[in-house]
Amino acid sequence: MDRLTQIASGARDAANILQTLTTSQKSAFLTAIHTKLANAKPQILAANAKDKSLALPQVEAGKLSSSLYKRLDLEGPGKFETMLQGIKDIEELEDPVGKVLLANRLDNGLELYRVSCPVGVLLVIFEARPEVVANIAALAIKSGNAAILKGGKESFHTCEAVGKAIREALEEVSATVVDGTSSGGNKAARCLADAVQIVESREDIDGLLKQDKYIDLVVPRGSNALVKYIQWNTRIPVLGHADGLCSTYVASSAKLDLAKKVVVDAKTTYPAACNSTETLLVHSSHLTSDFFAQLAKALIDNGVTLKCDQPSLASLQNPSSTLADIFKSSESADKIQPSTEEDYHTEFLELTLAVKTVDSVEEAIKHINNHGSKHTDAILTEDEPEAKQFMAGVDAAGVYWNASTRFADGFRYGFGAEVGVSTNKTHARGPVGLEGLVIYKYQLHGNGHATADYGTGEGKRPFLHERIDLDEKETLGDLARKRQRLD
Amino acid sequence: MDRLTQIASGARDAANILQTLTTSQKSAFLTAIHTKLANAKPQILAANAKDKSLALPQVEAGKLSSSLYKRLDLEGPGKFETMLQGIKDIEELEDPVGKVLLANRLDNGLELYRVSCPVGVLLVIFEARPEVVANIAALAIKSGNAAILKGGKESFHTCEAVGKAIREALEEVSATVVDGTSSGGNKAARCLADAVQIVESREDIDGLLKQDKYIDLVVPRGSNALVKYIQWNTRIPVLGHADGLCSTYVASSAKLDLAKKVVVDAKTTYPAACNSTETLLVHSSHLTSDFFAQLAKALIDNGVTLKCDQPSLASLQNPSSTLADIFKSSESADKIQPSTEEDYHTEFLELTLAVKTVDSVEEAIKHINNHGSKHTDAILTEDEPEAKQFMAGVDAAGVYWNASTRFADGFRYGFGAEVGVSTNKTHARGPVGLEGLVIYKYQLHGNGHATADYGTGEGKRPFLHERIDLDEKETLGDLARKRQRLD
Repeated sequence: MDRLTQIASGARDAANILQTLTTSQKSAFLTAIHTKLANAKPQILAANAKDKSLALPQVEAGKLSSSLYKRLDLEGPGKFETMLQGIKDIEELEDPVGKVLLANRLDNGLELYRVSCPVGVLLVIFEARPEVVANIAALAIKSGNAAILKGGKESFHTCEAVGKAIREALEEVSATVVDGTSSGGNKAARCLADAVQIVESREDIDGLLKQDKYIDLVVPRGSNALVKYIQWNTRIPVLGHADGLCSTYVASSAKLDLAKKVVVDAKTTYPAACNSTETLLVHSSHLTSDFFAQLAKALIDNGVTLKCDQPSLASLQNPSSTLADIFKSSESADKIQPSTEEDYHTEFLELTLAVKTVDSVEEAIKHINNHGSKHTDAILTEDEPEAKQFMAGVDAAGVYWNASTRFADGFRYGFGAEVGVSTNKTHARGPVGLEGLVIYKYQLHGNGHATADYGTGEGKRPFLHERIDLDEKETLGDLARKRQRLD
Repeated sequence: MDRLTQIASGARDAANILQTLTTSQKSAFLTAIHTKLANAKPQILAANAKDKSLALPQVEAGKLSSSLYKRLDLEGPGKFETMLQGIKDIEELEDPVGKVLLANRLDNGLELYRVSCPVGVLLVIFEARPEVVANIAALAIKSGNAAILKGGKESFHTCEAVGKAIREALEEVSATVVDGTSSGGNKAARCLADAVQIVESREDIDGLLKQDKYIDLVVPRGSNALVKYIQWNTRIPVLGHADGLCSTYVASSAKLDLAKKVVVDAKTTYPAACNSTETLLVHSSHLTSDFFAQLAKALIDNGVTLKCDQPSLASLQNPSSTLADIFKSSESADKIQPSTEEDYHTEFLELTLAVKTVDSVEEAIKHINNHGSKHTDAILTEDEPEAKQFMAGVDAAGVYWNASTRFADGFRYGFGAEVGVSTNKTHARGPVGLEGLVIYKYQLHGNGHATADYGTGEGKRPFLHERIDLDEKETLGDLARKRQRLD
């Protein structure tokens, strides 16, 4: 067995045990990881200093960005403590495993339960933010999954040090948490140490992407190029998004103040984020009043360059506009440019916004469905049926009415944790919390039931197919207790 | 645009409209399809006769199986009517689209809804059962998806005739159901005619598997080889299963009568089905009593050949057994054979069963996780904690306690319809009903909300993140009405 198969099959063995742990057993692991990381702070920061000293000359030579260097730094004020607190926060989330999602009584004594369970083995790839190791390890364990992690190469020593502390915690707790008396006890302890593994090189990733026998889900968090590369080079399902080409449509009934506030927020608060608006669709009626000019001015005042189609460009250059003088100033003029078709397919990730004029909500929906990346798109309108038409007709993970596209975020959605943002059309979509790391299995509880007894004809009987009523909070354990009380 | 891109992009355009239809609009399509098919019965049966006349010489020459020929035949008693009734049955299922799955109040007036919506465009590939065209078309439309269908080549003329009737129904209803007054009216009617399209050749499939820009999900229903080929040749998510290697574990506390009934059912009621048991795991304690010999006799009496590991083989050949004489008879002796490791990786699909002795439930779980196909596995035991250990530890879509693996079926589960059985670890698992054809989108309803207003510091406020209580049956429309009453 080669090294990468060993890593992947080790993760699989760990996953097979992790899926059987109770919430409190998983909490014991998370607590131990928290403690080990706190105790290993000096070693981790020393490793981080090494990464930084290797990175600094590259930053000075202009080969690495200063923002990457900043993300790499684990020594900044509060950063290490935030990482530790993150583990505690994840521990306190509701356990996503073991929920009864559906319960059908197929016949007397034959009960079917759809129960949430972990996906299995995750391969998570992320950029040079070393605290992500601890975050993903905690998310994986909380949801009963094993994880193989690869951070950016610039953070390798830090990731390795964090990974070492996590492994020590896993080894220590395995022996006590998992029943050591069963025949598999010692094996289990060894397996669980493989629940979180760190790999180093891009070549490792290429090899692991082929381990579809053992790995169930790849979560790439990083550049568009990285995500696309992974999507094209594995048979394993990939959870994530390559592009974030979000649009905001300002409909004819939109209020100007609302539009200025929302569009400026959607474009300028973090232009490099995937949920920033890249295309502004404007209803043509706004070009014949000052509405669009006022909106454009608000954007330009906030540093935005507009790439306008012919009608919107002409309206800004119209000398009869009360704002004409402003747009004639050389500074503003630089910020108003003609667009090309390519601009409507571009995720600028900077203070540039493509502007397109449309005559109807149908045209806006069509433009978005043909150009967008199915991430998040908004309509600004006072017309509720129009808003509903937009939200039904736009095929995207997020469809917003009178709100900034930048709300598309797991923390803002109240999910407590974000695994990633998915533009997939299956499994999990949009900002994905812990629920994206679970799937379900069907448990069927019978008492010697055989299929040959069901059907039509002599000696056969039909299925009952009664829904078993479930309180949302009810577990299978509660159900069993309830049954016992009824018996 | 080449022909296949045109087919795929046409399906996408149709899907964009289908996702906006109400339940009653979709029902109008299903009713029209039902009527058109009923009216086209003579033409469809004529096409079916042509397919049969082309197939018959091949059956006689031994190149096609008679069971395939039987499946091809749409003229058999009640078959056409069953196909028609299937459309009515699907129409009556609950609409899986538009359900509010989660509702969070992020702030006053800023409400987030997770709402079920269609996946989009399906590519469904199936064998020579022409009635499947009508079935899948109905499932797709009911769930708001467009579908591209490819049946077995032997049923081509029948599929074409069924597809023609469906297209006529789609064209006829599109003009009236979809608002013809909106600017997109005529276009919409044309688009919706592309909601169900039939393709003919294997080469078409190869081309369509590359259309990941337009196609969201591939559902192959057919041979192991077909499913594997598709899984390996597309980036589009595939819903299905290649293998069905199910196991049943007879634990030490299992009752003999129960075991005989369940194992005989699991093995013999339909050996070619994916949910038939292929491996019998027996606790070693059963080899020292007559338990295993009795179970083996019941299986052999039902025509099963046992491929036994050394301990189980030895126990049947033990002359001290009260059944020893029976197993010595030449007929039975033929049905007891030594196994090889390969047998535990084999989906026999016939009356052959691999037998493996294990010493514990842990060993049974481990064997299944290493050899099974994550389809359906059962434990027979009177020991509840052991059953729970098995159901938690076996990583499969179905984990059964004292019931036959052959219950793994959408109709037996009470889903009303079955899209397929999935051994995937993401999206949908096990027998998949209409819910496998939907995903969700997030609707955010605001009133000019901008992200810059949230956070800590002057002028910033925190998120509320309150769960909005939902009645399970409540729709967004109900919520809106409730809000209006509250206002």
